[in-house]
Amino acid sequence: MDVLAGIRSPEDLRRLSASEVETLATEIRQFLIEKVSATGGHLGPNLGVVELSIALHRVFDSPREPIIFDTSHQSYVHKILTGRADQFDHLRQQGGLSGYTCRSESEHDWTESSHASAALSYADGLSKAKALSGHHKDNVVAVVGDGALTGGMCWEALNNIAADHDRNVVIVVNDNGRSYAPTIGGFAENLAQLRMQPVYDSVMEHGKNTLNNMGWVGRRTFEALHAFKEGVKSTVLPSEMFPELGMKYVGPVNGHDLVAVEEALTYARDFSGPLIVHVVTEKGRGFRPAEADTDQLMHTTGIIDPITGEPKSAASPGWTEIFTEELLDAAAERNDIVAITAAMAGPTGLLPFKDRFPDRFFDVGIAEQHALTSAAGLALGGMKPVVALYSTFLNRAIDQLIMDVGLLKQPVSIVLDRAGITGSDGASHNGIWDITLTSVVPGIRIAAPRDAQQLREQFRESLAITDGPSIVRYPKGGLPTEQPALNRYEDGVDVLAQEKAPVDTHEAPSVLLVGVGTCAGDFAEIAGDIAAQGVTVTVVDPRWVVPIAPSLLELAQEHDLVVCAEDGLIHGGVGSLLSEAMDAAGIDVPRRCCGFPRVFPQHASRSELMAELELDAPGLRRQVSEWIEELFGQAEDGQ
Amino acid sequence: MDVLAGIRSPEDLRRLSASEVETLATEIRQFLIEKVSATGGHLGPNLGVVELSIALHRVFDSPREPIIFDTSHQSYVHKILTGRADQFDHLRQQGGLSGYTCRSESEHDWTESSHASAALSYADGLSKAKALSGHHKDNVVAVVGDGALTGGMCWEALNNIAADHDRNVVIVVNDNGRSYAPTIGGFAENLAQLRMQPVYDSVMEHGKNTLNNMGWVGRRTFEALHAFKEGVKSTVLPSEMFPELGMKYVGPVNGHDLVAVEEALTYARDFSGPLIVHVVTEKGRGFRPAEADTDQLMHTTGIIDPITGEPKSAASPGWTEIFTEELLDAAAERNDIVAITAAMAGPTGLLPFKDRFPDRFFDVGIAEQHALTSAAGLALGGMKPVVALYSTFLNRAIDQLIMDVGLLKQPVSIVLDRAGITGSDGASHNGIWDITLTSVVPGIRIAAPRDAQQLREQFRESLAITDGPSIVRYPKGGLPTEQPALNRYEDGVDVLAQEKAPVDTHEAPSVLLVGVGTCAGDFAEIAGDIAAQGVTVTVVDPRWVVPIAPSLLELAQEHDLVVCAEDGLIHGGVGSLLSEAMDAAGIDVPRRCCGFPRVFPQHASRSELMAELELDAPGLRRQVSEWIEELFGQAEDGQ
Repeated sequence: MDVLAGIRSPEDLRRLSASEVETLATEIRQFLIEKVSATGGHLGPNLGVVELSIALHRVFDSPREPIIFDTSHQSYVHKILTGRADQFDHLRQQGGLSGYTCRSESEHDWTESSHASAALSYADGLSKAKALSGHHKDNVVAVVGDGALTGGMCWEALNNIAADHDRNVVIVVNDNGRSYAPTIGGFAENLAQLRMQPVYDSVMEHGKNTLNNMGWVGRRTFEALHAFKEGVKSTVLPSEMFPELGMKYVGPVNGHDLVAVEEALTYARDFSGPLIVHVVTEKGRGFRPAEADTDQLMHTTGIIDPITGEPKSAASPGWTEIFTEELLDAAAERNDIVAITAAMAGPTGLLPFKDRFPDRFFDVGIAEQHALTSAAGLALGGMKPVVALYSTFLNRAIDQLIMDVGLLKQPVSIVLDRAGITGSDGASHNGIWDITLTSVVPGIRIAAPRDAQQLREQFRESLAITDGPSIVRYPKGGLPTEQPALNRYEDGVDVLAQEKAPVDTHEAPSVLLVGVGTCAGDFAEIAGDIAAQGVTVTVVDPRWVVPIAPSLLELAQEHDLVVCAEDGLIHGGVGSLLSEAMDAAGIDVPRRCCGFPRVFPQHASRSELMAELELDAPGLRRQVSEWIEELFGQAEDGQ
Repeated sequence: MDVLAGIRSPEDLRRLSASEVETLATEIRQFLIEKVSATGGHLGPNLGVVELSIALHRVFDSPREPIIFDTSHQSYVHKILTGRADQFDHLRQQGGLSGYTCRSESEHDWTESSHASAALSYADGLSKAKALSGHHKDNVVAVVGDGALTGGMCWEALNNIAADHDRNVVIVVNDNGRSYAPTIGGFAENLAQLRMQPVYDSVMEHGKNTLNNMGWVGRRTFEALHAFKEGVKSTVLPSEMFPELGMKYVGPVNGHDLVAVEEALTYARDFSGPLIVHVVTEKGRGFRPAEADTDQLMHTTGIIDPITGEPKSAASPGWTEIFTEELLDAAAERNDIVAITAAMAGPTGLLPFKDRFPDRFFDVGIAEQHALTSAAGLALGGMKPVVALYSTFLNRAIDQLIMDVGLLKQPVSIVLDRAGITGSDGASHNGIWDITLTSVVPGIRIAAPRDAQQLREQFRESLAITDGPSIVRYPKGGLPTEQPALNRYEDGVDVLAQEKAPVDTHEAPSVLLVGVGTCAGDFAEIAGDIAAQGVTVTVVDPRWVVPIAPSLLELAQEHDLVVCAEDGLIHGGVGSLLSEAMDAAGIDVPRRCCGFPRVFPQHASRSELMAELELDAPGLRRQVSEWIEELFGQAEDGQ
C-alpha cells in the first residue's frame, strides 16, 4: 500500500505519475476488499468506481468544484482519497465512518441522504448559486447510476439543467447496467444499445488485472470524442442522450481505463455548459465473487470471507422470508394478485414471485411514485396489487398514496420491509416515518405484526380488503419468539398478558400497555415486573394500528394510565392516534408514549440504537416504571 | 344548441356527420363560455380541447377503452359529451358537478386527483391489467399537457410504458406551450422546435371560426403520417419523442382541425404498441379575453363577464399580495434571496419578483421534488431560497423535505399558499396535510400567521433562520381583521384575550384556547361568550406552531382544559403536537382538538366547508361549549 499511504487529500493525487495512479487503483481495490469484508458495506458498487473516483479527484478541484454522489453508497473511494482511509475499521459502526457521504466528516462531502436520483437536483441548485455568486466557471459534478436515472427526480433536474446553456454541470452516468437489480425500462434498453460498442464489450469481457491492456480502447474512443466540435455530435454514437432536452453527451467511456476516464472528464471540465459523461463500469470489479453475482446479493454485504465472499455467519430466516412464503401461497390461489417493486426485488423478497409468476411481476425502476400510481391503475383494472418497498422509500410516494390510491379508495396492499430502526445504513434508511405519513390517508388500514404468525395472518387480511389501501409493516432483523394471545377482541385486538398487583386490592392503579409490532412482545415480557410495582397490568397488541379499534378505546377508559410503545416516530404515531381518539371520545386518562423523538438516528447497530432510545425491554421497563412512580407513587405510599 | 342537445353519450357522437361535428364544436364553445363565466372554473383549458375531446370520444370506445385526463381540469367537454351538460349550472358548487373527473359522476371518469403528471402511471397500470385479463387489444388513453411532462412521474411512467411494446397505451400530448405558466426547461425548448412546422403556425395565427379553412393543413400532415411504416419515422419531424426510451411519435397535429385530430387518433388506436400523439392546441381558443391572456390569469376564473372576461366582483388584496410585498422588500435588502416556483409564479405571487429580480427567479416546471432539492443545493451554495408552493403540492416533495433539506439542515424558506380548506377545487386541492406531513422533519419550524401583520413579521423571521428549513403557511381567501396581542411571551406566543368568569371565584375552571392561524382571531371573537359559561378563558396564538413553545406548555399546565383549533388535520396537527408535548412533560390536563377529520373534503365554497366542519366562529363556540359542559357542567351546577 505504498502509494495509498501517501494520499491524504486530492492534491496528493494530482502529483502521481501515470504508473503510480495505476498502482493506487490496485491498492485501493485490495484495501476495500480487506476492510469492507471485515465490517460489511457496499463493496460491489465501490469496486466499480475506483478508477472513476481517482480520475474525478485528479481532474476537478474539490471542494471548490463540488462532487455530488447520488445515493453516495459508492463514496468509499472518495473517502479514501479525501483523508479518511484510516477510519475504515469502524465503517458504519457507532461513532465510526458513515457508509454514505457525511458533511461532518469532510468538506468534500456535500450531501447525506441515500435516497436515489437527487444528485442532479442538488447540482442544479449548487450551479445556480455558483452563477449568482460570480463563480460560474466552477464545475459542479454529479455522479449518478444508470438505475437512478429511472427516477423521476432526474428528469425534472435534467429539464432544468439542460435549459441553461451557461452553467457548468457535469453529469457522470456510472453505467453498470444494474442498480440494485438490472435496470429496467425503455431507458435501460437504450443504454444497452449505446453499450453495443467495442469499448463496452471490452469492459465486460475482462477480469481484474487487465486495466493496462485496455487502455487503447478507451483512448481510441476518446480520440474520436476529441474530434467533436462544440455540440459533440458523436461519430461513435448515433445520437445525443436526452435529445429532447438538448443534453450534450460524450461516451461511452471505459470506466476502468484511467487514461480514458481522465481525458473524458478533462474534456467535460473544459466544456462550456452542461454535459453528460457516460462511463461504463463493472460492479464488483476485481473481486470475483461480486463480479459473478448476477442476483446482486452482494450490493451490500455483511461480514464476509475476503477470498470467497461467503458470509461469516449464516442469516436465519427473517420477516422477509415469511412474507415471500405467504405471498407465493396467496398468489397460487388468486390469479389477480400482482407484485410491484421499485428496483428492489431481491431485498424485498419478490424474486421467487418473479420466477414463479413472471407475467404478474412488475419492476418499475427506482420509481416509487410510479409504483404507487401504476398500482392504483392495476387495481382500477381489477387486479390486486402488492407493492413491496422499504419503509423509508415510501416517503417518495406520499402524495401518490394520498391522491392516487387513497382518494380513489383502491385496494392496493403495501408491504413495508425495514420499518423502524434499520441501523448501520444511517439516518436516511430508517423506516420511522411511515405510520405518521401514511396514517393521514382517509380509510387506510395499517398492520404492525408482532411475529411471523401475525405477519402471515395480517398479510392475508390485507389481501382481503377491497375498499381502500392497506399497509403491513415489519422491521429489519430476526423474528422474535411467537407470542400467543390470551384472547382476541372481535375487532382484532389481542390481549397478550394480564397481571395483577401483588397485593390485590381494588385500589391498585391499572396500566394499559399497548405494544406496536415487536414492542408487544417486549411489553408482555416486562408485564410481571411492572405489576410488581403495585399496579395491575394489561398488555395488548392492537395488530391493526390504524384505525384505532373500538375495543382499544374501551380498554383505555378502564385503566388509569395508557402507555404505547412503537418503533416509529412518537409524533403522529400509534400512541398519538390513540390519544387523539381518546380526546375525541372524552377519555381523559393520562397517556404516555415510547418511540422515536424527532431526530435523525445516526448509524449504529439496530440493537445499539434501540437501547439508546430505550425501546428495548429494559428501556421500556425503566420508562414505564418512572411514569407509574410519578403518577401513582403517592397513592401507593398511602396504602 | 341543436346538435349538443342530442348528445347524451359518446355513442350519439359517433353518429354525427362531419358538418354536425363542426357545429357541435361551436356549440360547445358557446356553452362553455356561457356556463363557466357564470360559475367560475377552468375556462381556458377547456376551450382548448373542444375538438380533441370530441375526437377522443368518436375514436375510442369509452369506458371499455379508458380515457385518463391528467389533472382533469380540462375534462369539462368530456363531461358534456358523457351526459352531464345539464349539470353545469352547479359546476364546482356544493352537491353539484365536480370541476375534475369524478368516479361517482360517470363510468367514463377513472380518476379524481388534480395533481399533475399522474395520468401516464394510471394508464400504465390499467394497460397492464388489460393485458393480464385478456383484453390486451383495448387501448388505454392518457391526455397530458406539455407542462405536466416536466414532472418526474411522467418520466417514470414513460420508461415503463416504452419498455413493453405490446401494450396499447395512447399518450395524447396536449401541447399549448403553457400549463399554468409557459412551460419551462430543455423539454419546452424541444417542443417549441417541434412546433416550428406550418401546422403550428396555422393554429396560432387563426382566431375562432377558421376551423374549416385549416383542415387541409392537418390533412396534409396526416397523409404524410399515414405513409409511414411500422416505426413511424416521420417525414415531417426529424426525430421521435423520448428517443432514449424508444417512444413512437406522431405529430404535431393541429388540435383544432377535427378531421386531422380524428385521423391521428384513429391511427393511434389501430397502432400496435405504445404511441405518443402530439396535438397542438390554443388555450382559451374562441374566447378573445382568454386567448389574449399572456399571464394565464384566466387559467381558472371566478365569475366573469361572458363577453369581456372581466371579473364581476373585484378581488380584495389577500394573503398572497402581502407575501409578494414583503418578499420584494426583503429581496431588495438581501441579494442572496432567490425565489423558486413549480410552474405557479402567478398564483403564488412571484411574478413581481420575477420581473424585478429575473436572475434570482427560478421556475422549475411542475416539479416540486426538484424545487425542494435544488433549493437545498442553492442553500448549500450560500443562497437563501424561498420556495413558494400551494400547500397541497408540497405533498409531492415530502421525502425531499425530510432527506434533502432537513437532514442537511439547510435554511430553505417554504411559503405555502392555499393552506387549509380551498373549497371549490375539491378534495385534492385542499391544503390540510402540510402540518402533519412536514412536522416530522427534525428541526423544522412552522409558522401560521393569523393576519397580514403577522405574515409580514413571520416571513421575515423565517428569512432570518440559518440552521434548518422553515414553513410559513396561510390560507386562500381574504385577510381577516388584524388582531393585536395583549402581550407576547419571549418565545413568541401571543396572548390575544383573557376573560374572567362572570362570577369571579377562584373555583371557576379555566380554559386555554389555542388558535392556529385565522382560528386565533375566531377564538378571540368568541372568548367572551365562552367565559359567560362560567369559566375563565385565555386565548393564545402560538404563531410558530412547530416546535411547541415552552410558554405554551406552561400555560397548558395552568389551565383545566386545553382546546386547539386549526385549519388542518387533527391527526398530527398542532393540537396533537401540543398534546404529545404535554404527555412528555407529564401535564395531564384534558385537551380537545378542532380541525379536520381524516376524510377528503368534497367541493363546496370555503365558507360552506368551514361551517360544515364547525371551524368557523359559531362552530368553534358550539364545540368548546359542549366540552366545557361535559367536563365542568356539574361543578358549575354545584356553585
